[in-house]
Amino acid sequence: MSNLSFGDFMGGLARLISARPRIPRSLEGNEMLATLLQRRSVRSFTEQSIDEDAWAAILEAGRLAPSTVNLQTWSFACFTADQWRAHFDTPIPMQAQRGMVILADTHRMRRALPDFPEADLCEYTLAVMNASLAAMNMTAAAEALGLGSVMLSETGRTGFYDAKHLTAKLELPAHVVPIMSIVFGYPAGKASVMPPKLPLEAVAFTGAYQEASQETLNRWRDEMRAGYQATHGGERFEAKLAYYRGRIDEAEKNLHRLVHPDDES
Amino acid sequence: MSNLSFGDFMGGLARLISARPRIPRSLEGNEMLATLLQRRSVRSFTEQSIDEDAWAAILEAGRLAPSTVNLQTWSFACFTADQWRAHFDTPIPMQAQRGMVILADTHRMRRALPDFPEADLCEYTLAVMNASLAAMNMTAAAEALGLGSVMLSETGRTGFYDAKHLTAKLELPAHVVPIMSIVFGYPAGKASVMPPKLPLEAVAFTGAYQEASQETLNRWRDEMRAGYQATHGGERFEAKLAYYRGRIDEAEKNLHRLVHPDDES
Repeated sequence: MSNLSFGDFMGGLARLISARPRIPRSLEGNEMLATLLQRRSVRSFTEQSIDEDAWAAILEAGRLAPSTVNLQTWSFACFTADQWRAHFDTPIPMQAQRGMVILADTHRMRRALPDFPEADLCEYTLAVMNASLAAMNMTAAAEALGLGSVMLSETGRTGFYDAKHLTAKLELPAHVVPIMSIVFGYPAGKASVMPPKLPLEAVAFTGAYQEASQETLNRWRDEMRAGYQATHGGERFEAKLAYYRGRIDEAEKNLHRLVHPDDES
Repeated sequence: MSNLSFGDFMGGLARLISARPRIPRSLEGNEMLATLLQRRSVRSFTEQSIDEDAWAAILEAGRLAPSTVNLQTWSFACFTADQWRAHFDTPIPMQAQRGMVILADTHRMRRALPDFPEADLCEYTLAVMNASLAAMNMTAAAEALGLGSVMLSETGRTGFYDAKHLTAKLELPAHVVPIMSIVFGYPAGKASVMPPKLPLEAVAFTGAYQEASQETLNRWRDEMRAGYQATHGGERFEAKLAYYRGRIDEAEKNLHRLVHPDDES
């Protein structure tokens, strides 16, 4: 991958800063829609704690999320900041007030419905899918309460890249796979710039699959690189990809063991 | 699995009918929270069509959903009811007005970032996770607009059980896996009873994994069976599980081919 030229860097940055959610004029007065579309991942929180009612409302949004055949294949391992530090022997990410590890959980369903058909990949798919629906619903509920949150699926010891570590720390039985963490708190400071989103025509189409143009993808890649460099003290996005490449084989091996617990290989 | 006794049937039904979202009193005035918690899957729609602004707002909620490293590993194959019928040679489910097939898509990301580390299960996990986040965000946006929707991951030819069929029909390249469909429209009639949800203490805990009690799981199973029987003309929930068991081996084999496209086996 070539280096990012100064022109591409500035162009990418300019497009990033000017990006806004596209809310049709006829729907500009819809507050819930605006809240959903203006949501940003929050990575800096105030010291204000989250009271029990707000936390209960967030969990209720997880409990009542939709799921395949209503099977509710999720569990939520919950922590205050202090509990997180005590349990994981490391501070809660982003100095947030509360955190939870989202678990794709078919262990409970297997106990409730011994007749449920077994098939590793189908089972894992529905578990990841439903647990992610619950995660998004809790994130939306947090927005409704003025709280911010960030899903951590990618960094050290919080998501599926660290499934083996989390499985040990949370004493998870077979058929329970950690897929991400979410940390919550009241946002500190101004909302960050929207990360570079692909244009709608690159992700949505009518009927058969349509390829995004290479030009669109290159523009997006330049925005990603410019945005990453601007917000990470000049560090290159490629450095982050290299970090993943160094860990992926181990993560894949561990995940395979969790998804196919009865495999001997 | 034993038959459901009349007492268990009536008990399950009574608990079902009385179930309500638990909204803390201090948050009862929060309209967005109420809308999120009162969401129900809608399976009966009016003939009112969805205008372009509302549809654009729903898609915008998908486009702007959060994703791992902002990789946006999703695509949306969109249809009006007429387009659905023409494309799939079958009516759109539930006589809805619009539908989309949600695709877990890392094909586009691979074209944009050839350096991204390859690993089938990690890649599939992040694709399913992110596409599901987008699906839930679109569903929430629909609620904000007074629309109803239902996610179809489980029935004939709409979800990951039918991935092979959908892959052919949508001409999907490798690394694009259909995981569910969502159909949208304005709800007809009264909202249905809430399907039986597990109590919070069965799905959430602090720290290490905690098992739900067998009694709780048995109560939930009785509610599922009672609810299914009451809403499916007396058909037993076990009949639905048997239907899945009859199809699961084929579905698993097809899904394996899509998740591991370079496997020779």
